[in-house]
Formats: sequence, C-alpha cells, structure tokens
Amino acid sequence: MPEISRRGESMPASPIRKLVPYADAAKAEGVKVYHLNIGQPDLPTPQKALDALKKIDRKTLEYSPSQGLKSLQVKFRKYYTRVGINIHSDEILVTSGGSEALLFTMLSCFDPGDEIIMVDPGYANYLGFAKMAGLSVKSVVSRIEDGFALPEAHEFEEAITPKTKGILICNPNNPTGYLYSVEEMQRLRDIVQRHDLFLICDEVYREFVYNGEPYLSALSLAGIGKNVVVVDSVSKRYSECGIRIGMIVTRNEQVRKAVLKFSQARLSPPLLGQIVAEASIEGTEEYSRECFEEYKARRDFFIERLNRIPGVYSPKPEGAFYTVASLPVDDAEEFCKWCLTSFRYHAPDSPYTYGETVMMAPAAGFYTDPEMGRNQVRMAYVLKIEDLSRALDALEEALKQYNSR
Amino acid sequence: MPEISRRGESMPASPIRKLVPYADAAKAEGVKVYHLNIGQPDLPTPQKALDALKKIDRKTLEYSPSQGLKSLQVKFRKYYTRVGINIHSDEILVTSGGSEALLFTMLSCFDPGDEIIMVDPGYANYLGFAKMAGLSVKSVVSRIEDGFALPEAHEFEEAITPKTKGILICNPNNPTGYLYSVEEMQRLRDIVQRHDLFLICDEVYREFVYNGEPYLSALSLAGIGKNVVVVDSVSKRYSECGIRIGMIVTRNEQVRKAVLKFSQARLSPPLLGQIVAEASIEGTEEYSRECFEEYKARRDFFIERLNRIPGVYSPKPEGAFYTVASLPVDDAEEFCKWCLTSFRYHAPDSPYTYGETVMMAPAAGFYTDPEMGRNQVRMAYVLKIEDLSRALDALEEALKQYNSR
Repeated sequence: MPEISRRGESMPASPIRKLVPYADAAKAEGVKVYHLNIGQPDLPTPQKALDALKKIDRKTLEYSPSQGLKSLQVKFRKYYTRVGINIHSDEILVTSGGSEALLFTMLSCFDPGDEIIMVDPGYANYLGFAKMAGLSVKSVVSRIEDGFALPEAHEFEEAITPKTKGILICNPNNPTGYLYSVEEMQRLRDIVQRHDLFLICDEVYREFVYNGEPYLSALSLAGIGKNVVVVDSVSKRYSECGIRIGMIVTRNEQVRKAVLKFSQARLSPPLLGQIVAEASIEGTEEYSRECFEEYKARRDFFIERLNRIPGVYSPKPEGAFYTVASLPVDDAEEFCKWCLTSFRYHAPDSPYTYGETVMMAPAAGFYTDPEMGRNQVRMAYVLKIEDLSRALDALEEALKQYNSR
Repeated sequence: MPEISRRGESMPASPIRKLVPYADAAKAEGVKVYHLNIGQPDLPTPQKALDALKKIDRKTLEYSPSQGLKSLQVKFRKYYTRVGINIHSDEILVTSGGSEALLFTMLSCFDPGDEIIMVDPGYANYLGFAKMAGLSVKSVVSRIEDGFALPEAHEFEEAITPKTKGILICNPNNPTGYLYSVEEMQRLRDIVQRHDLFLICDEVYREFVYNGEPYLSALSLAGIGKNVVVVDSVSKRYSECGIRIGMIVTRNEQVRKAVLKFSQARLSPPLLGQIVAEASIEGTEEYSRECFEEYKARRDFFIERLNRIPGVYSPKPEGAFYTVASLPVDDAEEFCKWCLTSFRYHAPDSPYTYGETVMMAPAAGFYTDPEMGRNQVRMAYVLKIEDLSRALDALEEALKQYNSR
C-alpha cells in the first residue's frame, strides 16, 4: 500500500471538530449539548436570497466565468462603495468561500518555504492553508491580558527575516473578537511598507463591530495599495455559510492575474451560491440591522455573564461573534472533553430529562505553539440568548464540579 | 510592490481560454462563432434536479459536513452499485467539483517534489493542480497514429524513478475521447502493483462510452484496492457543471483521512449543489438515455464529417465528447487564431450576415512538451448536429483558404 503524503499526515486536524465524537455520543444519550464551539450562525438567511433560488429559470446550470459572474462583481462593488471602500468590479475575484480565497492568495503571493507572519491565537484553518501552499508560518502572540491587542511593532520586526513575504491578520478577529484600532492598522501599514510585504487581511466579520467606531479596512490604508489583499465572504454577513461564496479583493494586478490562473484551473466558483449572494446584497439593510442588534445583545449578555463565573476571564470583544476566555483549569481540552463525557447539568427548571452540557473549542489549537492558551477556550455566541444563558449556567456548574473532584 | 510567487508567475494559463479575446472580438463584429473549444454541455440539466431548487425550505443555508451530506453520500453509493461498483458511502468524499477532488488527491498522496506520471495529451488543468501541489510531472506520450491508445508498459517503466508516487489517467479520456480497454487497464494495474504506486483515475466521463463495451472502472481492478483513488463529478453526467459537485472515491482509509483534513480546512462543499446533485441521481434514467443517444449521434456525425475534410485526421473516439484531430497546417494555434481574426465563412444559405467561424483549442497546451501536437486541435462536440455541421463546413473552407494564402 503506497504511503500518503507527509503533508497529509501532518495536516492539522480542525480544533473545532476534534471533540465532535464526544458530543455525538452525549447527544445519542439524549443530552442537550450547547454548541459554543462553532461559528455557524443560527440566524436565517435573508428571505430575498432564499427567494432567488425559487426564481432560477435556467435550463442548464452551466459553468460561470472563473472570476465570477460579472453581475455579482458589480453588486460587490456597490457593497464596497456603501461601506466606504472604492474598488473596481474587476478588482474583485469571486471564490468558493473565504477558504478558497485564502488558499489562492497564499498560492499567488508565496512560494513554498516563504514565510508568512500570523497573529496567535488565529483562525485554525490558516495553518491548514499554509500547509497546503507549503508556507512557513512565523507567529507573533497577542495576549489575553492585553485583551488580544495587536502585538508591538518590534515583535513583528523580530519575526521578519529575508524569507518573509507577508503578514496575515483577521479583523475583527476570529477567534478573539478583537477589533484592531486605527492606530494598530497604521502600525501594520508602516511595517508592511518598510519591508515591502503583502498584507493579507481577512475581513469577513467587517459588519460586526459593536463599539460604534468606523471600521478601517486594509483597503483604506494609504500608500500600500499594491501590498494589500483582502479576503472576504458573504457567509457570516448573510448567514449563508453553505453557499460557499467568498472573494479576493486587491488593487495589485499581478496578484489578480495569478489568482485568475488558479481560478481557471478549478473552472468556476459555485453558480447557485453566486445567484444567492447577488440577491443578498441589496434591499437587505433591515435584515442586516436586525442581525447586528441581535449579535450585539448576545455579546453584551454573554460576556457579562461569562465574567461572573468565578475564575473565568474574557476580554470584551468589539467585533465578530467569538471570544477567547481563560478558565480556572490547567488543561482546557481535558475539561472540554469532560464536559461532554462526564458532566450532565440538571437544572431544576430543565426541560431536558438527560441533562444539559456545553461544547467549547479548546484554544490551544488556535496557537502555533499549542502550549500557549492551554487554559483557554474559544466560544462563539451564535445561539439565542436563552440558550446562551443555560449554556453558561451549565459551564459554571461544570467548573465547580470539575475543580472539586 | 512585493513580487508575486514564482508558481503564480509560471502557472500555466488555460489553453482553452487563451484565444477567448479573439473570439470575443469576432462576436462583437456580429460573427457567429461555433465553440468547439470547450466542454460545456448544451444539454439541459434534469428537470428533477432543477425542481429540487424550488423545493428548498431551509431557513438558513448552513455549512454541510466537510465530507458532504450523508444523504448525498448514500445516493452516490446507490449510483455506484447501479454501475457495478461496490463501495461504501463513507468511502465517498464530496468535493467542490472534480477540480477540488484532483487537488485534494494530489495533496494527500504526494509531497512537493514527488513525481506523478501523466499521459500526454492530457487534461490541461492537471498541470495546474500539480503546480499548486508542488508535484513534478513526468509524461508518457500517447500518439494520434495509435488512436491515442495507452502507451506500452515499458514506456511507463522508463518514466518511473524512486520519486514516482503515482500515475494519473483519465478514462474515457479528455482530450482524446479514447476509451482504455480492459487489457490496458490491467497493464496499468500490473505497473501500479509492481511499484506500489497510487493509480488516480479521473472517471467523470464514465457514462459516455459508445462502443457498447462494459466500462472498467479503476475501482474494479483486482488486488490494488488501496492504490486506487477515483476522481468523479456530476458535472458532465447531468449537465450541471455550475453546481461544483465532485467526489473522491477510495478504499484507502489513510488517503480518506488526509482528504478529510484538507476538506475540513475549507469547511464544506457547496450545499445547494449537493441538493441538486442528490436530486439528479435517481429517476433520471430516461434523461440519461436521451443524453447518451444525443452524444452518440453527434459523435458519429462529427467524426465522419471531420475525416472527410482533406488533410484532416481524427481517430474515432469511443468515449467522452472530445477528439484530438490533426490538421494540414504547421501551427494549429496560428490557424485557430486566424479563424477567429481573419476568416469569415459566408455560406449561400447562411442566416449570419457577418459570417461564421469556428473556435478550437490548440492541442499543444494539452502536452507537457508543447512542441508535440503542434498541428493538432482539441474539439468538443457539445453542439447540436446542425451547428456541428455548419462548424465543420466553416472549418473545411477555412483550411482551403488558409493553405492557399
């Protein structure tokens, strides 16, 4: 039997899914499991977008252009204009989700062995795409005690070598929910300019900013127009993760040319998803406002309640719908597993005969060095407030029992 | 400005799209261009599949599992049973088209620098995926004078080095339409077994076999169950290229584990495409028969008429809907470009005031060594017979004029 590749062997498994078998076993027992582990929004897709599916009258579901349907590129341009970003429709290349946008960006900007700097903790799949593209990952660490603020300039400078070709950030951040300030974005701008690096910015949570301040896109940074590649997606914005529509936005024509060649190799992005995405962009302002208010209310409730659990600490995230919190345990992965296998919460008012428990993502998998963040978990607040409340009641009780075993 | 990657720079552009600007210019002049260059079927998607879109009653278009919806895996298993292949539903991993299936297979089976053997002429995008995955491509050449039959065993043996990890074939073949015989598949089996290589078989045209013989899938080869990885897709089978649903089928659990990790990194295949694919598989026997008869009639007409053009030679393809033919010109690319820029066919009965012309894909781009096949073109017969007839009338006249300039 031929052996699989070393990269297949060493490809990191998703930290979000690692504990799924335990959760499945608990559910099979009839236990109610609150999923704080994944960022699958429970909010509905806009009705207008769902209706677009009913109206499709094509006879053949053909390939679309490799860069995406022109009509969709034009709609995306309008969206960017609305959020204050001036970009041409040809500078937007449609991809199969933000995932493919990340992969194609890495393939286009980096050669195998080139170094990319990422901020820890980071979106776990960045490491997966870096592995696929053969990149060498260097990390600078943001710390929970600083609220996961951007590391200092000298920390980036120390990580830069002659092999460094770019920096990748996510703003607002997954997994921390941290929103980079104007000053922090300018700090990045200066570093990128000084060393002539690519700045790859994952902005899929752009709409979810709760502190009322204007959002500063990397596309709006002066003087580094050709250095910036933005990765974007409609998945979270319109609760349509399943349609797999993302995009690469860049004013760098050479990058776009390379991306287009990778895009041509895979022929085209999903046609049906493009039709749904196109219908999501206009006439959905009311929908977007409602989603925003809902996430803000959840954030306010969730973080306040979470911090009332003895020994738990979470910074207050100003964006996205995640937080990374520290728990009063040595090994969060062990604790998360224990919650699924050995802990059942029986509240007096509970409608769940077999008890309730909570599923969280151990944060170690979001750090390049898994020893970091060993007592941390990533939680997504994409459940109804009522469920978030029950989930945190369960967590509080779980910690109490776990620490008095 | 930071430089793009060398792999982005050297990524082969699609030979099928190279001449598109010339075709667009001709069309802008009002010229009727017959597209023999691309394999975009003109036949309709099954009505049952289109109807499935109208019936979607989900409120949220969520992520699906990374390996695909269980219900779709089960439907695919039924399909394989129907075509005589015994496979478990868990051995089928759903991908974003056959394209992603190819990429994930290469990433899972090969490390950068490992060698893969391909047969020339081959599907041009194989080279693109090999580039993405960092593979080194060795080729063995099938020849038009042999009807593009599988090269002899010794030709494969000569290409094998200690770095060789697998052989990739497409059966029935794109671009040649050649159908590998049972004897040829067993020849591959023996080589693969002797050297313990992966045999990757692209079987997306499995349904399109015109000589009445049973189709021998690589999955049915005895004794190399763990060596075989089949790449498949619903795109051509149901004329639904735009939904981007393909699959990897393998009995090798290690390969599946690696593929799953790459699949998890990109979260999930397209949900809507999966719903359409699922509706396409059963109750479409009548549809499939009609498509088959149509393609067979086109093949019979096309190849016979093509070979009546003086100096043109095409083997008779027994599968898929392509052929590679030699033309009485030195440089097929120059001729193809000339057809688009300088030639207008004015048939006495033509309804096209500005004339007609034909677009073909120069075959050089399908060879690793572009010097090979310089006088060859790839043609797809995915047009109505009436249009194929006009296209070949135009081609005959074009050759006459081109060679008497």
